[in-house]
Amino acid sequence: MTNAIQSSDRAAIEKIVASLEAAWNTGDGKAFGAPFSTDADFVNIRADHFQSRDAIAAGHDAIFRTIYAGSVNRYKVESVRLLRPDVALAHVHAVLNSPAGPLAGTHASRFSIVLTREGGGWQIASLHNTLVASDSR
Amino acid sequence: MTNAIQSSDRAAIEKIVASLEAAWNTGDGKAFGAPFSTDADFVNIRADHFQSRDAIAAGHDAIFRTIYAGSVNRYKVESVRLLRPDVALAHVHAVLNSPAGPLAGTHASRFSIVLTREGGGWQIASLHNTLVASDSR
Repeated sequence: MTNAIQSSDRAAIEKIVASLEAAWNTGDGKAFGAPFSTDADFVNIRADHFQSRDAIAAGHDAIFRTIYAGSVNRYKVESVRLLRPDVALAHVHAVLNSPAGPLAGTHASRFSIVLTREGGGWQIASLHNTLVASDSR
Repeated sequence: MTNAIQSSDRAAIEKIVASLEAAWNTGDGKAFGAPFSTDADFVNIRADHFQSRDAIAAGHDAIFRTIYAGSVNRYKVESVRLLRPDVALAHVHAVLNSPAGPLAGTHASRFSIVLTREGGGWQIASLHNTLVASDSR
Protein backbone atom coordinates (compact mmCIF):
# COMPACT_ATOMS: atom_id res chain seq x y z
CA MET A 1 0.00 0.00 0.00
CA THR A 2 1.02 3.59 -0.50
CA ASN A 3 2.88 5.46 2.19
CA ALA A 4 2.44 9.19 2.65
CA ILE A 5 5.11 11.20 0.86
CA GLN A 6 7.00 14.04 2.53
CA SER A 7 6.84 17.38 0.77
CA SER A 8 10.65 17.39 0.62
CA ASP A 9 10.64 14.11 -1.31
CA ARG A 10 7.90 15.34 -3.63
CA ALA A 11 9.95 18.48 -4.25
CA ALA A 12 13.11 16.46 -4.94
CA ILE A 13 11.27 14.32 -7.48
CA GLU A 14 9.69 17.39 -9.13
CA LYS A 15 13.21 18.81 -9.41
CA ILE A 16 14.50 15.65 -11.12
CA VAL A 17 11.65 15.80 -13.66
CA ALA A 18 12.43 19.49 -14.26
CA SER A 19 16.06 18.53 -14.88
CA LEU A 20 14.97 16.02 -17.53
CA GLU A 21 12.85 18.73 -19.19
CA ALA A 22 15.74 21.21 -19.12
CA ALA A 23 18.14 18.62 -20.52
CA TRP A 24 15.73 17.85 -23.38
CA ASN A 25 15.21 21.51 -24.18
CA THR A 26 18.93 22.22 -24.30
CA GLY A 27 19.60 19.02 -26.24
CA ASP A 28 22.02 17.67 -23.63
CA GLY A 29 22.06 13.87 -23.66
CA LYS A 30 24.53 13.57 -20.81
CA ALA A 31 22.42 15.83 -18.58
CA PHE A 32 19.32 13.86 -19.56
CA GLY A 33 20.98 10.65 -18.41
CA ALA A 34 22.40 12.10 -15.19
CA PRO A 35 19.43 11.46 -12.85
CA PHE A 36 19.26 7.78 -13.81
CA SER A 37 20.97 4.99 -11.89
CA THR A 38 23.85 3.37 -13.74
CA ASP A 39 21.75 0.26 -14.43
CA ALA A 40 18.46 2.06 -15.18
CA ASP A 41 15.85 0.80 -17.64
CA PHE A 42 14.20 3.08 -20.21
CA VAL A 43 11.36 2.19 -22.62
CA ASN A 44 10.60 4.89 -25.20
CA ILE A 45 7.42 5.61 -27.20
CA ARG A 46 8.48 3.03 -29.82
CA ALA A 47 8.88 0.43 -27.04
CA ASP A 48 12.63 0.32 -27.58
CA HIS A 49 14.26 -0.79 -24.33
CA PHE A 50 17.52 0.88 -23.26
CA GLN A 51 19.45 -0.51 -20.32
CA SER A 52 22.03 1.64 -18.45
CA ARG A 53 22.52 5.34 -17.87
CA ASP A 54 25.16 5.42 -20.62
CA ALA A 55 22.76 3.94 -23.19
CA ILE A 56 20.04 6.39 -22.16
CA ALA A 57 22.41 9.35 -22.45
CA ALA A 58 23.81 8.21 -25.79
CA GLY A 59 20.37 7.46 -27.22
CA HIS A 60 19.11 10.91 -26.27
CA ASP A 61 22.24 12.59 -27.54
CA ALA A 62 21.54 10.96 -30.91
CA ILE A 63 17.88 12.01 -31.14
CA PHE A 64 18.62 15.55 -29.90
CA ARG A 65 20.95 15.97 -32.85
CA THR A 66 18.62 14.41 -35.44
CA ILE A 67 14.88 13.73 -35.32
CA TYR A 68 14.22 15.87 -32.23
CA ALA A 69 16.65 18.72 -32.97
CA GLY A 70 15.14 22.00 -31.81
CA SER A 71 12.17 20.37 -30.11
CA VAL A 72 10.73 21.58 -26.83
CA ASN A 73 9.21 19.34 -24.13
CA ARG A 74 7.02 20.45 -21.24
CA TYR A 75 6.63 18.00 -18.35
CA LYS A 76 3.93 18.09 -15.70
CA VAL A 77 4.10 15.72 -12.71
CA GLU A 78 0.61 14.27 -12.32
CA SER A 79 1.11 12.01 -9.31
CA VAL A 80 3.78 10.75 -6.95
CA ARG A 81 3.40 8.02 -4.36
CA LEU A 82 5.73 5.90 -2.28
CA LEU A 83 5.82 2.13 -2.76
CA ARG A 84 8.33 1.96 0.09
CA PRO A 85 9.93 4.72 2.17
CA ASP A 86 12.82 4.66 -0.31
CA VAL A 87 10.97 3.74 -3.54
CA ALA A 88 8.70 6.20 -5.36
CA LEU A 89 6.42 5.93 -8.40
CA ALA A 90 5.52 9.04 -10.39
CA HIS A 91 3.47 9.71 -13.52
CA VAL A 92 4.31 12.61 -15.80
CA HIS A 93 2.39 14.14 -18.72
CA ALA A 94 4.62 15.48 -21.50
CA VAL A 95 3.82 17.80 -24.40
CA LEU A 96 6.42 17.84 -27.15
CA ASN A 97 6.66 20.50 -29.82
CA SER A 98 8.92 19.34 -32.61
CA PRO A 99 9.72 21.59 -35.57
CA ALA A 100 10.49 18.75 -37.99
CA GLY A 101 11.05 15.02 -38.33
CA PRO A 102 8.71 12.06 -37.85
CA LEU A 103 6.95 13.72 -34.91
CA ALA A 104 6.74 17.23 -36.33
CA GLY A 105 4.01 19.15 -34.54
CA THR A 106 2.62 18.78 -31.04
CA HIS A 107 2.40 15.39 -29.37
CA ALA A 108 1.48 14.34 -25.86
CA SER A 109 2.82 11.36 -23.97
CA ARG A 110 2.58 9.96 -20.48
CA PHE A 111 5.55 8.37 -18.74
CA SER A 112 6.00 6.68 -15.40
CA ILE A 113 9.22 6.72 -13.42
CA VAL A 114 10.33 4.56 -10.53
CA LEU A 115 12.88 6.16 -8.25
CA THR A 116 14.95 4.81 -5.40
CA ARG A 117 16.50 6.84 -2.62
CA GLU A 118 20.23 6.26 -2.64
CA GLY A 119 22.91 7.83 -0.46
CA GLY A 120 22.85 11.22 -2.12
CA GLY A 121 19.19 11.46 -3.05
CA TRP A 122 16.65 10.02 -5.48
CA GLN A 123 17.69 8.25 -8.70
CA ILE A 124 15.52 7.03 -11.57
CA ALA A 125 15.63 3.22 -11.81
CA SER A 126 13.03 2.95 -14.59
CA LEU A 127 11.23 5.19 -17.09
CA HIS A 128 8.49 3.98 -19.43
CA ASN A 129 6.87 6.30 -22.00
CA THR A 130 3.73 5.99 -24.16
CA LEU A 131 2.40 8.38 -26.79
CA VAL A 132 -1.14 9.56 -26.02
CA ALA A 133 -3.51 8.13 -28.64
CA SER A 134 -4.31 10.75 -31.26
CA ASP A 135 -8.05 10.61 -30.57
CA SER A 136 -7.47 11.12 -26.81
CA ARG A 137 -5.51 14.38 -27.04
CA MET B 1 21.68 -0.80 -7.63
CA THR B 2 20.26 -4.14 -8.55
CA ASN B 3 20.21 -6.96 -6.03
CA ALA B 4 20.43 -10.59 -7.10
CA ILE B 5 17.04 -12.23 -7.44
CA GLN B 6 16.22 -15.64 -5.96
CA SER B 7 14.95 -18.21 -8.41
CA SER B 8 11.82 -18.60 -6.26
CA ASP B 9 11.02 -14.89 -6.64
CA ARG B 10 11.70 -15.02 -10.38
CA ALA B 11 9.36 -18.03 -10.60
CA ALA B 12 6.65 -16.24 -8.59
CA ILE B 13 6.82 -13.22 -10.91
CA GLU B 14 6.76 -15.44 -14.01
CA LYS B 15 3.65 -17.07 -12.55
CA ILE B 16 1.95 -13.70 -12.07
CA VAL B 17 2.67 -12.75 -15.68
CA ALA B 18 1.31 -16.12 -16.81
CA SER B 19 -1.86 -15.42 -14.80
CA LEU B 20 -2.32 -12.11 -16.63
CA GLU B 21 -1.91 -13.91 -19.96
CA ALA B 22 -4.43 -16.59 -18.96
CA ALA B 23 -6.91 -13.95 -17.76
CA TRP B 24 -6.61 -12.08 -21.06
CA ASN B 25 -7.06 -15.23 -23.10
CA THR B 26 -10.16 -16.27 -21.19
CA GLY B 27 -11.52 -12.70 -21.22
CA ASP B 28 -11.73 -12.51 -17.42
CA GLY B 29 -11.38 -8.92 -16.23
CA LYS B 30 -11.59 -9.79 -12.55
CA ALA B 31 -8.84 -12.38 -12.87
CA PHE B 32 -6.74 -9.88 -14.85
CA GLY B 33 -7.03 -7.38 -12.00
CA ALA B 34 -6.40 -9.92 -9.23
CA PRO B 35 -2.57 -9.73 -9.08
CA PHE B 36 -2.61 -5.94 -8.75
CA SER B 37 -2.51 -4.09 -5.44
CA THR B 38 -5.74 -2.30 -4.58
CA ASP B 39 -4.13 1.09 -5.36
CA ALA B 40 -2.17 -0.03 -8.45
CA ASP B 41 -1.44 2.22 -11.44
CA PHE B 42 -1.91 1.04 -15.04
CA VAL B 43 -1.01 2.92 -18.24
CA ASN B 44 -2.22 1.27 -21.44
CA ILE B 45 -0.98 1.56 -25.04
CA ARG B 46 -3.12 4.69 -25.53
CA ALA B 47 -1.50 6.25 -22.43
CA ASP B 48 -4.79 6.12 -20.55
CA HIS B 49 -4.00 5.96 -16.84
CA PHE B 50 -6.13 3.70 -14.61
CA GLN B 51 -5.75 3.90 -10.85
CA SER B 52 -6.91 1.01 -8.60
CA ARG B 53 -7.37 -2.71 -9.02
CA ASP B 54 -11.10 -2.22 -9.51
CA ALA B 55 -10.59 0.25 -12.37
CA ILE B 56 -8.06 -2.10 -14.01
CA ALA B 57 -10.44 -5.07 -13.72
CA ALA B 58 -13.43 -3.09 -15.00
CA GLY B 59 -11.47 -1.58 -17.88
CA HIS B 60 -10.26 -5.00 -19.00
CA ASP B 61 -13.69 -6.51 -18.59
CA ALA B 62 -14.98 -3.85 -20.99
CA ILE B 63 -12.32 -4.38 -23.68
CA PHE B 64 -12.55 -8.19 -23.42
CA ARG B 65 -16.22 -7.90 -24.34
CA THR B 66 -15.74 -5.38 -27.16
CA ILE B 67 -12.63 -4.36 -29.09
CA TYR B 68 -10.49 -7.29 -27.89
CA ALA B 69 -13.16 -10.01 -27.86
CA GLY B 70 -11.63 -13.31 -28.92
CA SER B 71 -8.06 -11.98 -28.95
CA VAL B 72 -5.08 -14.00 -27.76
CA ASN B 73 -2.03 -12.56 -25.99
CA ARG B 74 1.33 -14.27 -25.50
CA TYR B 75 3.62 -12.80 -22.84
CA LYS B 76 7.35 -13.42 -22.52
CA VAL B 77 9.24 -12.15 -19.47
CA GLU B 78 12.40 -10.52 -20.82
CA SER B 79 14.04 -9.38 -17.60
CA VAL B 80 13.47 -9.21 -13.87
CA ARG B 81 15.62 -7.38 -11.33
CA LEU B 82 15.23 -6.30 -7.74
CA LEU B 83 15.29 -2.61 -6.86
CA ARG B 84 15.03 -3.59 -3.20
CA PRO B 85 14.70 -7.03 -1.57
CA ASP B 86 10.92 -6.51 -1.66
CA VAL B 87 10.55 -4.43 -4.85
CA ALA B 88 11.01 -5.94 -8.32
CA LEU B 89 11.02 -4.49 -11.85
CA ALA B 90 10.22 -6.71 -14.83
CA HIS B 91 9.91 -6.15 -18.57
CA VAL B 92 7.56 -8.27 -20.66
CA HIS B 93 7.16 -8.61 -24.45
CA ALA B 94 3.60 -9.24 -25.59
CA VAL B 95 2.25 -10.43 -28.92
CA LEU B 96 -1.47 -9.90 -29.41
CA ASN B 97 -3.54 -11.60 -32.06
CA SER B 98 -6.87 -9.88 -32.42
CA PRO B 99 -9.52 -11.17 -34.83
CA ALA B 100 -11.29 -7.82 -35.26
CA GLY B 101 -11.52 -4.27 -34.00
CA PRO B 102 -9.07 -1.35 -34.13
CA LEU B 103 -6.09 -3.64 -33.53
CA ALA B 104 -7.14 -6.49 -35.80
CA GLY B 105 -4.11 -8.56 -36.70
CA THR B 106 -0.87 -9.17 -34.86
CA HIS B 107 0.67 -6.46 -32.69
CA ALA B 108 3.60 -6.46 -30.32
CA SER B 109 3.99 -4.39 -27.20
CA ARG B 110 6.41 -4.13 -24.33
CA PHE B 111 5.28 -3.49 -20.77
CA SER B 112 7.09 -2.99 -17.51
CA ILE B 113 5.71 -3.98 -14.14
CA VAL B 114 6.80 -2.95 -10.67
CA LEU B 115 5.96 -5.45 -7.95
CA THR B 116 6.17 -5.29 -4.18
CA ARG B 117 6.38 -8.24 -1.84
CA GLU B 118 3.46 -8.07 0.57
CA GLY B 119 2.44 -10.52 3.28
CA GLY B 120 1.17 -13.20 0.96
CA GLY B 121 3.49 -12.76 -2.00
CA TRP B 122 4.21 -10.36 -4.86
CA GLN B 123 1.66 -7.79 -6.05
CA ILE B 124 1.79 -5.53 -9.10
CA ALA B 125 1.97 -1.87 -8.03
CA SER B 126 2.39 -0.47 -11.54
CA LEU B 127 2.09 -1.60 -15.15
CA HIS B 128 2.98 0.56 -18.15
CA ASN B 129 2.50 -0.66 -21.74
CA THR B 130 3.73 0.64 -25.11
CA LEU B 131 2.94 -0.66 -28.59
CA VAL B 132 6.09 -1.62 -30.51
CA ALA B 133 6.56 0.80 -33.41
CA SER B 134 5.36 -0.75 -36.66
CA ASP B 135 8.76 -0.44 -38.33
CA SER B 136 10.50 -2.16 -35.39
CA ARG B 137 8.45 -5.34 -35.32
